[in-house]
Amino acid sequence: MFDRRSLNAFRDPASVAVVGASGDPAKWGHWLARGARAGGHRRRVYLVNRSGADVLGEATYRSIEELPETPELVVVCVPPTAVRPLVEESLARGTRAFLVITAGVPDLDGLTSLLVEHDAHMVGPNSLGLYDAAAELRLAWGHFTPGPLAIVSQSGQLGSEIANLAVRLGLGVSRFVSVGNQTSITARDLLDDLVDDPDTSVVALYLEGFADGAELVPVLRALAEAGKPTILLTTGASAGSQRLARSHTGSMTPTLDVVDAACRAGGAVRVSTPLELVNLASLLVSAPRPPGRRVAVVSDSGGQGGIAADVAAARGLEVPVLTDDLQARLAASLPAAAALANPIDLAGAGEADMGVYAELCRILLRSDEVDAVVLSGYLGCYGEDNPATREAEFDVADRLAEIARGHGAPLVVHSMSDDSEAVRRMREHGVAVYPAVEHAIAALAGAAALHESPGRELKVPGEERTLAGIGYWAARELLGGLGVAFPAGRLVRDRAGLEACAALAVPVVLKAAWLEHKSEHQGVALGIGSMDELATAYDEMHDRLGDGEYVVEEQDARPNVVEMLVGARRDRDFGPVVVVGSGGTEAELYRDVRIELAPVDQETARRMIDDLRCRPLLSGWRGRPAVDVGALAAMIVAASELIAASPSISDLEINPVRVAPDGALAVDALVITKENPLV
Amino acid sequence: MFDRRSLNAFRDPASVAVVGASGDPAKWGHWLARGARAGGHRRRVYLVNRSGADVLGEATYRSIEELPETPELVVVCVPPTAVRPLVEESLARGTRAFLVITAGVPDLDGLTSLLVEHDAHMVGPNSLGLYDAAAELRLAWGHFTPGPLAIVSQSGQLGSEIANLAVRLGLGVSRFVSVGNQTSITARDLLDDLVDDPDTSVVALYLEGFADGAELVPVLRALAEAGKPTILLTTGASAGSQRLARSHTGSMTPTLDVVDAACRAGGAVRVSTPLELVNLASLLVSAPRPPGRRVAVVSDSGGQGGIAADVAAARGLEVPVLTDDLQARLAASLPAAAALANPIDLAGAGEADMGVYAELCRILLRSDEVDAVVLSGYLGCYGEDNPATREAEFDVADRLAEIARGHGAPLVVHSMSDDSEAVRRMREHGVAVYPAVEHAIAALAGAAALHESPGRELKVPGEERTLAGIGYWAARELLGGLGVAFPAGRLVRDRAGLEACAALAVPVVLKAAWLEHKSEHQGVALGIGSMDELATAYDEMHDRLGDGEYVVEEQDARPNVVEMLVGARRDRDFGPVVVVGSGGTEAELYRDVRIELAPVDQETARRMIDDLRCRPLLSGWRGRPAVDVGALAAMIVAASELIAASPSISDLEINPVRVAPDGALAVDALVITKENPLV
Repeated sequence: MFDRRSLNAFRDPASVAVVGASGDPAKWGHWLARGARAGGHRRRVYLVNRSGADVLGEATYRSIEELPETPELVVVCVPPTAVRPLVEESLARGTRAFLVITAGVPDLDGLTSLLVEHDAHMVGPNSLGLYDAAAELRLAWGHFTPGPLAIVSQSGQLGSEIANLAVRLGLGVSRFVSVGNQTSITARDLLDDLVDDPDTSVVALYLEGFADGAELVPVLRALAEAGKPTILLTTGASAGSQRLARSHTGSMTPTLDVVDAACRAGGAVRVSTPLELVNLASLLVSAPRPPGRRVAVVSDSGGQGGIAADVAAARGLEVPVLTDDLQARLAASLPAAAALANPIDLAGAGEADMGVYAELCRILLRSDEVDAVVLSGYLGCYGEDNPATREAEFDVADRLAEIARGHGAPLVVHSMSDDSEAVRRMREHGVAVYPAVEHAIAALAGAAALHESPGRELKVPGEERTLAGIGYWAARELLGGLGVAFPAGRLVRDRAGLEACAALAVPVVLKAAWLEHKSEHQGVALGIGSMDELATAYDEMHDRLGDGEYVVEEQDARPNVVEMLVGARRDRDFGPVVVVGSGGTEAELYRDVRIELAPVDQETARRMIDDLRCRPLLSGWRGRPAVDVGALAAMIVAASELIAASPSISDLEINPVRVAPDGALAVDALVITKENPLV
Repeated sequence: MFDRRSLNAFRDPASVAVVGASGDPAKWGHWLARGARAGGHRRRVYLVNRSGADVLGEATYRSIEELPETPELVVVCVPPTAVRPLVEESLARGTRAFLVITAGVPDLDGLTSLLVEHDAHMVGPNSLGLYDAAAELRLAWGHFTPGPLAIVSQSGQLGSEIANLAVRLGLGVSRFVSVGNQTSITARDLLDDLVDDPDTSVVALYLEGFADGAELVPVLRALAEAGKPTILLTTGASAGSQRLARSHTGSMTPTLDVVDAACRAGGAVRVSTPLELVNLASLLVSAPRPPGRRVAVVSDSGGQGGIAADVAAARGLEVPVLTDDLQARLAASLPAAAALANPIDLAGAGEADMGVYAELCRILLRSDEVDAVVLSGYLGCYGEDNPATREAEFDVADRLAEIARGHGAPLVVHSMSDDSEAVRRMREHGVAVYPAVEHAIAALAGAAALHESPGRELKVPGEERTLAGIGYWAARELLGGLGVAFPAGRLVRDRAGLEACAALAVPVVLKAAWLEHKSEHQGVALGIGSMDELATAYDEMHDRLGDGEYVVEEQDARPNVVEMLVGARRDRDFGPVVVVGSGGTEAELYRDVRIELAPVDQETARRMIDDLRCRPLLSGWRGRPAVDVGALAAMIVAASELIAASPSISDLEINPVRVAPDGALAVDALVITKENPLV
């Protein structure tokens, strides 16, 4: 990782030279010059223009050489072929930090090497710029309002969109960096630098590729532990975006379920759009995370309360029935027609006395029956419709802010007004207010997900293992040694080897164990009831398939079995991952699998199982007994530790895992090594 | 259905009396009086207040009796107990139309009967009011801007939220009716009245209950055929909203998959929130429906283009690779670094020449390779950042509007500016512009869904059928008579009856056919290989279960069978529906079923099958042969026609249906009648 001190020049340089400064507001060099000058009271700013013409009414320099001092940071906004000579000139002058706006720089590798040789660093090329609120450093096109959101983006314009949308919710920016091609300073370096930034409380990250994904996770986790969670926006969910990312930044987009696993391990959370990002950020900067998923919905409209409840359910939140006791306490402030069970419908009480909004929120947040309150409806509009009520509404806004601050559970507000004074007042005082109820609730669900996955340490466990041989028997030996249970079995290399099988309980199964697709080649014989039958089956199979490692195993005939699969592999970007899923052929259609970065502990393995849609099959489906979920979880843990500790193993699959009430048995397994990849 | 002429008084009354008019802006009577007076140049407006005090600087009347004429419409905004006397007084005076704002009116049934006796009608009680733009009739709290969106809402405040959100997108309201308790005039009456309203082009409908659902569908369809699609918002997706709706309006919320089926049949579409509603409405009022789901994404940012492509895929839209020919035509306007395959990334071309936005949209909309264009990014911000570019941007806005009008495929725009002049200009000229890309794309997906389901006639087919007897044999006879194929079989009432079974091919199955849960009671014997075995099996089963209708059937031993289920039932709200789904036990977990209002034709049945997630199982899963989907569709059609034509049948289920390459066989079936409901 980059030395954080080297980033000083990009945070608060003592002097900046903008090369390519321009008086034409259609040019980037204009905006960079204007932005740089806005910080002129904090640092020395030099505008450089080859023509030497005045820019923004100020004299310019023709070259770096002409400057009265060595600029700490040089902003490069010149044609592509002029970049290299400019950097060389600046390096000669002593500059070690470059912000390169120019896109399409030729021989980028050469330029990057040159910087490395001189121990110099660059943001970009193809950066849209950077901004630091505390240092009043504005070297970017676009408008920025100071605030607690840091933005690190591989796409400048998306970063800019995030900043724009955030301001509409009253949320400003602490630092903005458009990272461009990242051949020198990477997004990860910049994230690492944010860990101890006192002005940042939430990080917005847009990335198209995760070439250093495995190294990114600990940085995300460090941010999370510093109380600055990262909200990740990325692309690659569709063929279209994969195509575009390759063409746009040359990035290979990641598999999103692995990105989500990385987020869970890093204490970060992924969203799908800039708007989702700022909606969540707006909640995270102001409110505690909900400690659970139970939500009280309060509305002055039965219709709006119902919509809110439906949206909450769709987002995986619960709207529990409140206890009689709590309902009675709410009832004291409400007319008889009010609904109290949750959602709570004010039935006109808010119009009669606005204080009721605050009172209900206070009671609910103070109860231990819900983890968050959603207030949806008219509050925020009163003063606009009837100026006589403005002061009363401000008072409620202030009380709500006070109540929200005083409790460990968040309050989110949906107001029918987009931006009234009362709404602004709530936002200024730290209440998250949204113009659409689904935004409020999605933010709450995102915050709940962050609470559930605060990040975890990915400690490489135990010793490295290697596979002795290839095929099923070797996989069985390796996994068996790690505690994965298989049926009793014998390796049979020739006909004489069958004798040892007499110790096995019938029926048994005969497998041509070296074959990868045993069933396809009729390499499995089931239900063999005696030693005679075994001999016959062996002769028949041997005639067809020849010599090889045959395995005879007791056939798992336990009732009430659920077939699952457990797998592990090495992801291109994020390294070792472990997977559990339903083993049924048809369930493949429904993509019912869960994936986590490896290794996982028993608790995480349990959570993976609990999150499967086929979970009900395991806990006693239609009167059948529940199966041994703990044994399945142990097998996930074992697979995850093996892949994490053993670099030579690239892939493993235990499929099916037969899970019964008395334990889980692996009845087929495949381990692929780097030396013996599948063809 | 209500006579449309009776609604004249609610559209454009010659005279209105507002009873309960008030000078206090915190009171509803104030807003109603103000609103009514705003239409004073169109009609005679009388303010009535028991105290006789001046309101809004105008003298009031103390009673209806005092008025100089019979008001055509009386607006009732008095305490609950005062409603009945006021209505009586007004009826005596000759008024036949009432808008009742008051909530909690006692003896509502009595009041409703009184109105019926006098051939009078009421909107409400518990209405938030109504608005008619063309007639300048404003009898509601809230602000309304004239436009093409009609709003009919069971929740006044939700209707008001819809109107507010619509205006933010530049979309105004033609008519607004908060229907309240609907004991006289219902939402359906009001929708019917909109069919030939020249000022309405899209209808927003919020309902919590669908007691007359079956009658609502033809009205939705009439609206759709008049080119005014309905966007439905409803509630009941969660336990919380179900609870609230019962408490709020006493409504039993519907099953949402049936509501969606009703929307497809009615040419309407359901959304989940007010914002989704207005986003879709904003597109529908200005653009043609996309004739398919192929979308071109154009962006001046690779990041934004990728996000747009992912959102499109998540919404079921395709972002196809464009042909080389089309890419070449696009390339002519773009620099070498541009991405052309789709998404299209301008790579800076827009900055250099804004005309490129219009040119690309023109080429794409004129091609037959896409059904819609999504433009996402900076357009709309140029003039704000750099006033020198304002005129050029307006020009592009105008050209885009012209291009959008000239083609049969829609253009939707996501602009990073929320509300710049250029954005307003596009909206005014009929281009739908959104501040978030997911809003633009969700609107497009909603419009595509409307195109795919333009509504269909629910013609009750053929003759009514009745079930002769109970149990499987009777069901088999009934369904068999309608073309549903069963295995060859014989009814066996006693041991002698077994002889007739000699004609069947072995293996056969013996079933205790009168039992509903045959397997649970060991009422099925499979794999019977001879007449002797059949006799033994019969004796064993008869000893246990006694006399009854036994059925012997040939056992379906065809290979490559996929098990499905076909069912039909009578929905409480919407009447007969038909269902198809995967027959696997585990697939039940994934709720993989499709439902439509019955009857369906072969084409609709095929679509139901195509929309199943298990569809790949039917078309040759993992090298297996494809099965006879046509036969399955025919069985869906038969079940749908039976339930639609036969009021005595309440429920039927054919499960499993064994679908093989050579046809579909029903191997169990249950028909439930009103006379013999399941216990």
